Amino acid sequence: MYSFRNDYSDGAHPEILKAIIESNDIQTEGYGEDQFTAEAADLIKKKTGSDDIDIHFLAGGTLTNQTVISAFLRPHEAVISAGTGHIYVHETGAIESTGHKVLPVDSKNGKLTPLQIDEVVTEHHFEHMVKPALVYISQPTEIGTLYSKDELTALRNYCSSHNLILYIDGARMASALASEAADLYLPDYRLLSDAFYIGGTKCGALFGEALVICNDSLKKDFRYHMKQKGALLAKGRMLGVQFLSLFAGNLYHKIGSLANTAAGKLQEEILALGYDVQFHSHTNQIFPVFPEQVIAELEENYLFYRWAKESGDNSVIRLVCSWSTKDKFIDEFVDNLKRITQRQQH
Amino acid sequence: MYSFRNDYSDGAHPEILKAIIESNDIQTEGYGEDQFTAEAADLIKKKTGSDDIDIHFLAGGTLTNQTVISAFLRPHEAVISAGTGHIYVHETGAIESTGHKVLPVDSKNGKLTPLQIDEVVTEHHFEHMVKPALVYISQPTEIGTLYSKDELTALRNYCSSHNLILYIDGARMASALASEAADLYLPDYRLLSDAFYIGGTKCGALFGEALVICNDSLKKDFRYHMKQKGALLAKGRMLGVQFLSLFAGNLYHKIGSLANTAAGKLQEEILALGYDVQFHSHTNQIFPVFPEQVIAELEENYLFYRWAKESGDNSVIRLVCSWSTKDKFIDEFVDNLKRITQRQQH
Amino acid sequence: MYSFRNDYSDGAHPEILKAIIESNDIQTEGYGEDQFTAEAADLIKKKTGSDDIDIHFLAGGTLTNQTVISAFLRPHEAVISAGTGHIYVHETGAIESTGHKVLPVDSKNGKLTPLQIDEVVTEHHFEHMVKPALVYISQPTEIGTLYSKDELTALRNYCSSHNLILYIDGARMASALASEAADLYLPDYRLLSDAFYIGGTKCGALFGEALVICNDSLKKDFRYHMKQKGALLAKGRMLGVQFLSLFAGNLYHKIGSLANTAAGKLQEEILALGYDVQFHSHTNQIFPVFPEQVIAELEENYLFYRWAKESGDNSVIRLVCSWSTKDKFIDEFVDNLKRITQRQQH
Amino acid sequence: MYSFRNDYSDGAHPEILKAIIESNDIQTEGYGEDQFTAEAADLIKKKTGSDDIDIHFLAGGTLTNQTVISAFLRPHEAVISAGTGHIYVHETGAIESTGHKVLPVDSKNGKLTPLQIDEVVTEHHFEHMVKPALVYISQPTEIGTLYSKDELTALRNYCSSHNLILYIDGARMASALASEAADLYLPDYRLLSDAFYIGGTKCGALFGEALVICNDSLKKDFRYHMKQKGALLAKGRMLGVQFLSLFAGNLYHKIGSLANTAAGKLQEEILALGYDVQFHSHTNQIFPVFPEQVIAELEENYLFYRWAKESGDNSVIRLVCSWSTKDKFIDEFVDNLKRITQRQQH
Repeated sequence: MYSFRNDYSDGAHPEILKAIIESNDIQTEGYGEDQFTAEAADLIKKKTGSDDIDIHFLAGGTLTNQTVISAFLRPHEAVISAGTGHIYVHETGAIESTGHKVLPVDSKNGKLTPLQIDEVVTEHHFEHMVKPALVYISQPTEIGTLYSKDELTALRNYCSSHNLILYIDGARMASALASEAADLYLPDYRLLSDAFYIGGTKCGALFGEALVICNDSLKKDFRYHMKQKGALLAKGRMLGVQFLSLFAGNLYHKIGSLANTAAGKLQEEILALGYDVQFHSHTNQIFPVFPEQVIAELEENYLFYRWAKESGDNSVIRLVCSWSTKDKFIDEFVDNLKRITQRQQH
Repeated sequence: MYSFRNDYSDGAHPEILKAIIESNDIQTEGYGEDQFTAEAADLIKKKTGSDDIDIHFLAGGTLTNQTVISAFLRPHEAVISAGTGHIYVHETGAIESTGHKVLPVDSKNGKLTPLQIDEVVTEHHFEHMVKPALVYISQPTEIGTLYSKDELTALRNYCSSHNLILYIDGARMASALASEAADLYLPDYRLLSDAFYIGGTKCGALFGEALVICNDSLKKDFRYHMKQKGALLAKGRMLGVQFLSLFAGNLYHKIGSLANTAAGKLQEEILALGYDVQFHSHTNQIFPVFPEQVIAELEENYLFYRWAKESGDNSVIRLVCSWSTKDKFIDEFVDNLKRITQRQQH
Repeated sequence: MYSFRNDYSDGAHPEILKAIIESNDIQTEGYGEDQFTAEAADLIKKKTGSDDIDIHFLAGGTLTNQTVISAFLRPHEAVISAGTGHIYVHETGAIESTGHKVLPVDSKNGKLTPLQIDEVVTEHHFEHMVKPALVYISQPTEIGTLYSKDELTALRNYCSSHNLILYIDGARMASALASEAADLYLPDYRLLSDAFYIGGTKCGALFGEALVICNDSLKKDFRYHMKQKGALLAKGRMLGVQFLSLFAGNLYHKIGSLANTAAGKLQEEILALGYDVQFHSHTNQIFPVFPEQVIAELEENYLFYRWAKESGDNSVIRLVCSWSTKDKFIDEFVDNLKRITQRQQH
Repeated sequence: MYSFRNDYSDGAHPEILKAIIESNDIQTEGYGEDQFTAEAADLIKKKTGSDDIDIHFLAGGTLTNQTVISAFLRPHEAVISAGTGHIYVHETGAIESTGHKVLPVDSKNGKLTPLQIDEVVTEHHFEHMVKPALVYISQPTEIGTLYSKDELTALRNYCSSHNLILYIDGARMASALASEAADLYLPDYRLLSDAFYIGGTKCGALFGEALVICNDSLKKDFRYHMKQKGALLAKGRMLGVQFLSLFAGNLYHKIGSLANTAAGKLQEEILALGYDVQFHSHTNQIFPVFPEQVIAELEENYLFYRWAKESGDNSVIRLVCSWSTKDKFIDEFVDNLKRITQRQQH
């Protein structure tokens, strides 16, 4: 059964796999002190337009979020996140396990605004409450929406003037960067955040995320935190080799573009068949609305997540595409949906 | 410069790499719920002689130790470890970061005895002190020695009668299993411990450790702990595929055997040249004793760690071999050492 | 300026102070192993109708909540609390600081229902989310409401059938027990919870809370947890002496009754003057609704907290009474309010 | 049976009790924001010779150590302590429970030297090990010895030049200050440490310690940490009132002096009877060496701790005096010992 469940169902993009194979016999230092990792870090510095940033490679998103947040905060400090934020909902309390409260903010579209953050900051005014110190956002968000440059700049300004760290979870950063709706590029993320990560796991790598620390005051001793959290891979080269492959040419952008294009095509075809979408997506996740019976029949041939109940008999499902979602999978799905639709209409 | 620093300088064993390549295009579920992982777990169950164990795959040793110990203990409980134990010395306080004290025991040879443990248990007799609850040992130990079956059985008996969990760090388990001195096999580790892990990272894999939980009372909800610690890899298949490759045939044993044979040959040749070793090793790490001048000259062509000062001008160095340490590297090193030795004698 | 801000503005009730003075010259063991503490525990056992409970005395509410919750839960387990719960809002992340997420439930009246809890339990269905394991409620709640016997029984039944610990924060338990609306007595709390505490600090003591652990499986090693959290007072006798005084006769009930009566009288008089209350309180906290101008004038002579904005120009304030709130303070306040009211009406 | 077990067997010094009684009816703000606490803080500032320090009052030693250390350190940082240090041995892993490793140093006399600290610092040189960041010492030490001004200055200089925080646990500071051997006074502790605490619990108070933070960079948000650790007492006035009483006149010094004088007299008499002491003590704890049979007979009438085995049949016991150890208790003990001694000699 073909799966639209997520963007980590396959192995690595062939070019990445090739890089792993080619480097396999070369001896290197361990723990990220190898030449591949150094070169990958240099490339990312170049592409973000500054040498004055620190790059670290970690093996997964939860590990990255947990290491970053516990390294950046003092014990009484808390994180502000959308209530839909990955750290709030789907990391089994990883942040709290390091001692920090996550303060959820109701958000219809997965995004935060300065106004919403300000409410939380204002409410937490004295030592009987935690002290908000870091704002966590995702780009794209967990529900596929994108911050525009104006929106991110507004957050940046608010955070700067209120002494808050702004941290961006870029698990699907390739999709954000390659989106037709994008007006933010790598150098912007550097300029507009204190730290962000460039996701590999959901963007064609076997695993791995590239953390970029932009704010000088947050850089010190970060490798200690990585080691303490189990995030310093012995064969750290595996991360270097993969990101080298992603950023030596334009593979990272291409992977995002392939995923977005596949999702965009799928969305268009679904709309053309007369169905609705929860919102018009410009990333690699789309959220069509189908009657229950249609969903049930689709489930006979496809794997995907049910997302939310809609009015009446309708529900939203999530379909995720990746670099590996070939045209024929889209075509087959659409054919399938056409047949179901026709049957329903009789 | 050739490196004898450690057994994670290379990529993966070719057979493992092949398995990764062959499985790359197959879609699977994430987070270790794929068919490869299931099959690898079944194989390990078969090789340890029981279905009644839980197998989990994690991405590294520190992550495994930290997840295991924090999952098994209540907040006031502590770990007993040799003072040379990896968790005590070289994990940046990963165990303490989860709230648990590690009680170090002085040990000449890296091993613990029931008598030593009993001293600690007896000393910690009331609620003003932590309560020892888990004994951590490594097989082989951090300094290359091996527990015999009698020694491990004695520990097991002591722990059982004193309500202590016995946990074995098997980062280099392939070397232990394949050692000419071994009288312990996989089923023994299952019978004689509450949990142990079979290391992949230092035994030919790109990364990965297979945790075996033998004690029923420690099994519950373990995947929650993994997720919370960032140890649930999205493409968990990467761990399954590798361990499947290691255990489908006898590759794991072969990898240990290659490493031990290389180290054994190196040790013999060094002894033949009239040098001493700190102790006669039967695993893939050897500890020759050289005069300072010899070490300095070796360092011109080789990478390795200085281990300890000896009497006079002598020091111990550590040389680590792996499955990839070809004969020619041994031969070249020995030739090098011969030349240095001759020069010194003039 | 007289303060209606809280019930811990004064020193101790005179009878408690007397007991402290009388016992001052007697040598005792430290850390709660003295005769006073033993006797106080026995008395509480008697009054709750069972010997089969464990009693511990701790120096404050936050310390008690934190020690209890971190002792009872495993790392991945979480707490369900009303969004107004003290642990969620006003303990500076004390629970999260021990690694546990607190899951807030929207509650209009400060109370939880099985239905609300069930929603949270149902939503948290797999290892990518924390596992709800303990339900935290307060009696009276943080906003002065009371659980009835039926309500508490329903919670108990739900928790029992869903393997959840039910823990009651009784910081103002004296007020709950002495309320005219009460249909729950000490033995009921024992039967209907896994653990609860009988507050001293807000009920006439200098400080101190008596924790009652009812569920056998939660009793083991609790003093270790107390010591680790800094909750084992060297002169533990101070807690024993005070609770002995509170429970030897009916002082605890009397203290609750005095506070409730004062608050009840104040509420009646305010209603009689034509003002509204947010809800009709039966405990020692009342929540009258006043126009902004009235509040401003009251603030010239009294200390109290503004609680919430109401419709139009009105706000809710909180007035707290205690055993020490003499009739004359009530009378003066009412006179004051009368004068302000008359001025406003001109 | 009279107890020489410790210096917290009695209630409060009568003058402190009097202050508590006298202030009992006065309403105050909670959580240490009352007038008594403010006045006590001012007094301590005056006596330490600076306004530029922060004073906080906490309810016990473990709570103070835990709050201080977790507030001052980042997650990967560790504490250096004598192996006999209270935090290392007798606080049930309170420091580790906040995530920080305590690195023990072997010490014959309970004291640390720059040389010993330097060994630990030098050994911990990279990110695979914790980073030593705070040196914990006690004055007097847990075994009754005293740092001289020269010794403390040497530590101060070492710590300053190696970026280490120097923190002094002054649980028995009254005894240190009043010792005939003392050459350190309150202003010296301020100048020579980053933070220290002035113990109340073991120096005549019912409970309470006064923390002095001298280093500006460690002051920020400390009350948040106190609240989070359950160390912000609702009736914080209790701490203010007691320390006001201790420092308004010279009561604190007097309490230390009474305890030292009693212990000194006891030590002299024991020496006069021909027994040895482990070392000549100048504080309120003495460590006489007795044959086993003498100890057994003393135990029939007195409570005290056995401390260590000596050569042959001898053991060291610990006798602790306090401000409440009247002459007659000393005389009786000495008479008792004389009789036992005579019986033994027959």
